Amino acid sequence: MNPAAPPVLERYRPAVERALLRVVPAPGGPLQRVHDAMAYSLEAGGKRLRPTLCLATCEAVGGAPEQGESAAAALELIHTYSLIHDDLPCMDDDDLRRGRATNHRVFGEALAVLAGDALLTRAFEVLAEDTRLPAEIRVEMVTALARAAGSLGMVGGQALDLAAEETAVELSGLREIHSRKTGALFGASCRLGALAGRGPADAVTDLAAFGERIGLAFQIVDDLLDETASAEVLGKAAGKDRDRGKATYPSLLGMEESRRHLDQVFEDAQRMLVRFGSRAEPLAELARFVVERSS
Amino acid sequence: MNPAAPPVLERYRPAVERALLRVVPAPGGPLQRVHDAMAYSLEAGGKRLRPTLCLATCEAVGGAPEQGESAAAALELIHTYSLIHDDLPCMDDDDLRRGRATNHRVFGEALAVLAGDALLTRAFEVLAEDTRLPAEIRVEMVTALARAAGSLGMVGGQALDLAAEETAVELSGLREIHSRKTGALFGASCRLGALAGRGPADAVTDLAAFGERIGLAFQIVDDLLDETASAEVLGKAAGKDRDRGKATYPSLLGMEESRRHLDQVFEDAQRMLVRFGSRAEPLAELARFVVERSS
Repeated sequence: MNPAAPPVLERYRPAVERALLRVVPAPGGPLQRVHDAMAYSLEAGGKRLRPTLCLATCEAVGGAPEQGESAAAALELIHTYSLIHDDLPCMDDDDLRRGRATNHRVFGEALAVLAGDALLTRAFEVLAEDTRLPAEIRVEMVTALARAAGSLGMVGGQALDLAAEETAVELSGLREIHSRKTGALFGASCRLGALAGRGPADAVTDLAAFGERIGLAFQIVDDLLDETASAEVLGKAAGKDRDRGKATYPSLLGMEESRRHLDQVFEDAQRMLVRFGSRAEPLAELARFVVERSS
Repeated sequence: MNPAAPPVLERYRPAVERALLRVVPAPGGPLQRVHDAMAYSLEAGGKRLRPTLCLATCEAVGGAPEQGESAAAALELIHTYSLIHDDLPCMDDDDLRRGRATNHRVFGEALAVLAGDALLTRAFEVLAEDTRLPAEIRVEMVTALARAAGSLGMVGGQALDLAAEETAVELSGLREIHSRKTGALFGASCRLGALAGRGPADAVTDLAAFGERIGLAFQIVDDLLDETASAEVLGKAAGKDRDRGKATYPSLLGMEESRRHLDQVFEDAQRMLVRFGSRAEPLAELARFVVERSS
């Protein structure tokens, strides 16, 4: 599925897939079609970066993997819904995602909207119903995930991104788009993992900040890849942002300065892990993968 | 806004509007546009039936109105998001809602999708962050609301409804569509109100069942009004279901038998309130309004 995946993603993959298997609705019955549409995108693979970050963060604060299971699933549910809605004709209008036809190309627009809505809703159900965790932790996770995903987070970032197609954006504006659209959910991935692992409040804060930096790094790399990689490698259309005249790190700073910026963000993130010692080695490995990935 | 609203809706209206005011994002900043789109539909008025049912149920089990405030807001947030997405061109393609232009006609399709997503997300945030209620109650409310709104509830009902445009539906199928599309959220309105008011488990179950019956009654009345009322009275297109050849209670049972069916459902619902005595009088009044309304 992703031959370039580093050992850390492979190590966590069974736990991530197990977590997702538990949240996919059972097959059969009159709702099969909407459940098929949900499963189609959820099972389309992808790097599973957010749930892996979540489980690795849970481990970094001394938690057992099972503790982070529902949070990991919830994060991938949210990420998957956002891809389905972002790909819609009225949004980015993409036909290809992860090398396959996008959800609305297979199931039609109406069902794609509904499948996204259902995945988003299911994320909060999965978090709230996990009786293995104390209710206090669960409400904190629901609150954090909703803030990261909502109008001040990911949805707000997508709205700003759409508006940016029509007006010029400077570096501070681009950073805000990335911070909301990508940084918030990466930050929540680590925040939820740290909460699930019962880390102390200051560890939760630091690890959430680490996640936000990694999200920013991820987005800068995305911008760089959009300039340099081919559609075959990316599994989606390449050069799309550039063709649309959308602001990206390379278009505002040039390639070289963008790479310097990326190094800086990466160093910041690495520093935030120092206090967690060897337990944070998987997180460090994930950070390196985000910066060095080629697709 | 709604001159025919009965006293019970008017009595609860200040509490409902206060609850909603607390959840609308503050104006200003770069996210103004998506927040405007959210507020446009949230403030479009409407009967506020679901939050009123919630507050009245909270009262029926002896709770104070403040206890039900966040649940009431969450229910209207979910209902509002569902209207925005249902009105989209790829779904019911409606231009008019509550007598005003639909969200996508004013803000465009992309922003309408995002505003719906953000309202849905905000519903769970509002429930989870209300520290006036114990965490155990909040996780139970999040779980119940997500189940009612998700692929086995409202979203599933909408998916079945769309599929029903292409295949013949019999009475059992129509009942399932209504039960999921409308009954589930009405049931959750009463369930959340009973939970917020700290009602005992059996009262929560009974009141949720009452809510589901009221939801079914609401939908039968909707079908009857679609046959008989004018667009001016409804504030939306009339006769639309009939024109599309969609199954409705009147189309399957005829007008007279549909009305008999409605009476039966109403009586069932009334019976479920007996054990709650005079405290359930507002709920009884709401049930009567649902059955007797003309728009």
